[in-house]
Amino acid sequence: MDLYHISPQRATLWEKHKARLEEAKEAWHRRTYWYAYPEDVKAYSEEEASRGEAEFKAQLNRPFDRLLQKGRRWVVSDEISPYTREPLGISYPQSDVGEWIGAAQEALSIWRWVPWSERLGLLMESIERFSRKFFEVGHATLHTTGQAWMMAFQASGPHAADRAVEALAVAYEELSHIPPHVRWEREMGRAKAVVEKYFIPQPEGISLHIGVSTFPVWNVLPGLYASLAVGSPVIVKPHPRAIYPIAIVVAVLQEIFQEYGLPVSIVQLAVDTLEKPVTRSLAEHPLIRIIDYTGGTEFGQYLEALPNKVTFLEKAGVNCVLLESVDDIESVAKNLAFSASLYSGQMCTAPQNVYIPRSGVRTPQGVLSYEEVAQALQKAIEELASHPKAAPAILGALQNDGVAERVHRLSTFVQVRRAATVYAHPQFAQARTLTPIVAEVQTAYEHVTREEHFGPRLLLIPVESAHVALEILYQIARERGMLSCAVYTTDAGFKESAARLLVEAAVPLSFNFRGQVFINQSVAFSDFHGTGGNPASNASFTDSSFIAKRFHWIGVRDCLAG
Amino acid sequence: MDLYHISPQRATLWEKHKARLEEAKEAWHRRTYWYAYPEDVKAYSEEEASRGEAEFKAQLNRPFDRLLQKGRRWVVSDEISPYTREPLGISYPQSDVGEWIGAAQEALSIWRWVPWSERLGLLMESIERFSRKFFEVGHATLHTTGQAWMMAFQASGPHAADRAVEALAVAYEELSHIPPHVRWEREMGRAKAVVEKYFIPQPEGISLHIGVSTFPVWNVLPGLYASLAVGSPVIVKPHPRAIYPIAIVVAVLQEIFQEYGLPVSIVQLAVDTLEKPVTRSLAEHPLIRIIDYTGGTEFGQYLEALPNKVTFLEKAGVNCVLLESVDDIESVAKNLAFSASLYSGQMCTAPQNVYIPRSGVRTPQGVLSYEEVAQALQKAIEELASHPKAAPAILGALQNDGVAERVHRLSTFVQVRRAATVYAHPQFAQARTLTPIVAEVQTAYEHVTREEHFGPRLLLIPVESAHVALEILYQIARERGMLSCAVYTTDAGFKESAARLLVEAAVPLSFNFRGQVFINQSVAFSDFHGTGGNPASNASFTDSSFIAKRFHWIGVRDCLAG
Repeated sequence: MDLYHISPQRATLWEKHKARLEEAKEAWHRRTYWYAYPEDVKAYSEEEASRGEAEFKAQLNRPFDRLLQKGRRWVVSDEISPYTREPLGISYPQSDVGEWIGAAQEALSIWRWVPWSERLGLLMESIERFSRKFFEVGHATLHTTGQAWMMAFQASGPHAADRAVEALAVAYEELSHIPPHVRWEREMGRAKAVVEKYFIPQPEGISLHIGVSTFPVWNVLPGLYASLAVGSPVIVKPHPRAIYPIAIVVAVLQEIFQEYGLPVSIVQLAVDTLEKPVTRSLAEHPLIRIIDYTGGTEFGQYLEALPNKVTFLEKAGVNCVLLESVDDIESVAKNLAFSASLYSGQMCTAPQNVYIPRSGVRTPQGVLSYEEVAQALQKAIEELASHPKAAPAILGALQNDGVAERVHRLSTFVQVRRAATVYAHPQFAQARTLTPIVAEVQTAYEHVTREEHFGPRLLLIPVESAHVALEILYQIARERGMLSCAVYTTDAGFKESAARLLVEAAVPLSFNFRGQVFINQSVAFSDFHGTGGNPASNASFTDSSFIAKRFHWIGVRDCLAG
Repeated sequence: MDLYHISPQRATLWEKHKARLEEAKEAWHRRTYWYAYPEDVKAYSEEEASRGEAEFKAQLNRPFDRLLQKGRRWVVSDEISPYTREPLGISYPQSDVGEWIGAAQEALSIWRWVPWSERLGLLMESIERFSRKFFEVGHATLHTTGQAWMMAFQASGPHAADRAVEALAVAYEELSHIPPHVRWEREMGRAKAVVEKYFIPQPEGISLHIGVSTFPVWNVLPGLYASLAVGSPVIVKPHPRAIYPIAIVVAVLQEIFQEYGLPVSIVQLAVDTLEKPVTRSLAEHPLIRIIDYTGGTEFGQYLEALPNKVTFLEKAGVNCVLLESVDDIESVAKNLAFSASLYSGQMCTAPQNVYIPRSGVRTPQGVLSYEEVAQALQKAIEELASHPKAAPAILGALQNDGVAERVHRLSTFVQVRRAATVYAHPQFAQARTLTPIVAEVQTAYEHVTREEHFGPRLLLIPVESAHVALEILYQIARERGMLSCAVYTTDAGFKESAARLLVEAAVPLSFNFRGQVFINQSVAFSDFHGTGGNPASNASFTDSSFIAKRFHWIGVRDCLAG
């Protein structure tokens, strides 16, 4: 029985990329340092760099005409550069919800029957082609998200590509560990039963991917490639303020699908505007069966409650730091200042609450008082924020005005030790910037520490003892969720207590991060991102359930003799 | 960092069973004929057989005092033998919902930190010990479910044990494919980052398993062992009419947990009565995070809608047969008659709707008319049902009066070709029996064919053509769900069309089953049971998501140098 749409041309792509995907799969199991695409910008040629910049400049104030999907109208996006405060002036083709769903449904009838090996070959090829767009996507990311250049390049380029390869590696494992076909035989007295069995992976249905304005590529690629790998067409609904970066990826995929004789609507870009959002109409459509989402908690909870959907949600978390004892407060303060300042605290893994025992923090040189620790942190932030080169390279800009407003509102509840101030960006005079607020929160305002205040902030919280702080961290993780957590301790016993307690609350935990190792970062092929076990996220990049929940094994048995 | 509760004594069990579990894991991947426990009763000794029968007889009308869990009171169960119509007279210890949850929560704090290898060793050992109870559980199953002896022995004994081993094999794969600990190193300019990474599997929380009266062991063991394997304590809430069989399993597990220094409340039996059910109170408790369930659709939908639960549900399906063309109608009719009669149609995989083209069914000898096909089926059922030895061995008895009532009610909507009649059981004069109704359903009563009529029934449905029937099957699968489906065709083209269409509706499909191969049966290590893709079941025994959805990987990173 031959049920699949087979193409020798597509099969060559699988031959081309198979060894590399095997390597990625082994790296995923091994979990030591490995990457598919180098993160160092110097690993790429000058020519690539200047071509990417030129591509970006040529795209501004013009229709994004690289998509092959049909459009009913052109819509000018809400994208405004956080650096120049100028609209990007790019328009995108837009259809209606029913048209997107209809095209995806047509694509589903083909894509689900393309053998997984051909799908993986096509998708690996698309990542390779996308890698030639790393510079363009870097500029597009910088001018939509406000990330500084290095992050914009790495997060939307090689890091995102690595996460995509990772998703394909796990999909490869999940799809290949059951044979496509087997002959089952059994002696039954005088007779012999012979049954040909076919095991056919089938997607849950069409996928919807809802993007976020701060990480429009990194947070999309894992789910996008996971769904595509298992045969599910994806409708990508980017955040109206950050469309361009992911549009580049969608265009590359559509180009390859067309080249290899497949419907371009296997992946579609569904743009909307802040004024006329379409996300709910898409999400509620009964044919949408898989939803990936990064964003606020409230909308995430709405999505989670929709009936008959498989959801992969990353919502807000309240990330915490606990200082029990340290070797060197200065290096700890520097490390934390960097983590809190990186992209102005607009990473989902940025630290927010810093718990410091009132009795102080032990060091090999004696106990540092609460105030000494607080001052060290404040000083490290101050140094970074006032450094003319470091500030722009690390802080970048605020994605939108809401972030600044939130930080200013926060300052009315807390005791400000260091005010959030605008810093002058050396390259972009109009940049929307803000250095971190450092504030103290007393017990009476504890509720402030139970919410995420997305943006450049560090809340210092005096606490009875490190053990009490552990209990607080546990509660916050269980009730509000956490996407990162740093504990500093030189005490082996305390470390084990902390690990046991916080792991039970499904907290991704980091001990004694220092130097150039930051809690914000989770690297593909080694760190999971999100755990699925606390309210901040019901999924994890990229564990087996991130793939396995998207498809089902259907058995077909053909009895030849009974 | 050593976070686990380690025991050298428990570790020996892992050494003892590891090779066997490796073998099971390979079999799961290979999917050819393999078993852990032989299904043939003759593979077991006479001594075992008579000991099992004696154990069963000794248990009747006595408290089930083998459980080690605490009880607040003894409750006499609603168990009544479908064969003797006598109450079994067994009482079980009962606690209150809060007590069960509290004990499970205490167990969770230990069990989650027992290394998975020790857990798997303990669980394999428990299945081995349970295998010494196969005869007792067979008798207990016969006298609670109404299954005939061979099914009662096989389904609750070796077949259930095989599904448990299978669940452990997949858990072994899922838990072992990520290393527990790795040293991650990376050169960073002049510095070198060194991070010790720990990957710790943690369960979603406590599990609740809601059993069914017809398969009190086979449908419970996969989920029970899957949850236990990932560190989740399980509260087993059996159907009030079929407690004894699964109580035997729980007692074996508790005995082993106690022997190996663990809380017996890692698994608890939570009995209730028809008069005072506790299932909703348990299911709605916020600490219950995983629910396994087999039973009616309505209650399944209620469970599915509960917030913050991971559910594995098997609900009702409408199983269909389509006759397009056959080699030999007599052998097909015999095969279907057996499938429809086996355990009086009380298997979730029993066929119900038989679609026969009005224009007849092609054979190598010419076209058989609709009426000829209908008569062949009716005759095969008649022969089986009137055979003094075959009838009791195949039909067994009805689990409860509701089944008979449902079949009688059905007869008012359909055109009865063969009435459901009581057959005289040679061994048990009081047995609750009913032979299958064979009826015809005309288009006007089509709604009757869209519901499951659980019990001994076969509905013949004249249909325009085999292609039209395929469309009907597709619709039924999408809207109502299907747990099995048989298509008979000698036409390669029709076979492929049927496979493509029905696989898209996530139907487990069987072509041309004949002889001793029956569509009702799904065998461990080769067939999946349920697909997760149609409304009849949101899960599948045993694919990776059956395990992976129950736990999360939590990463702990310890930075040694940055």
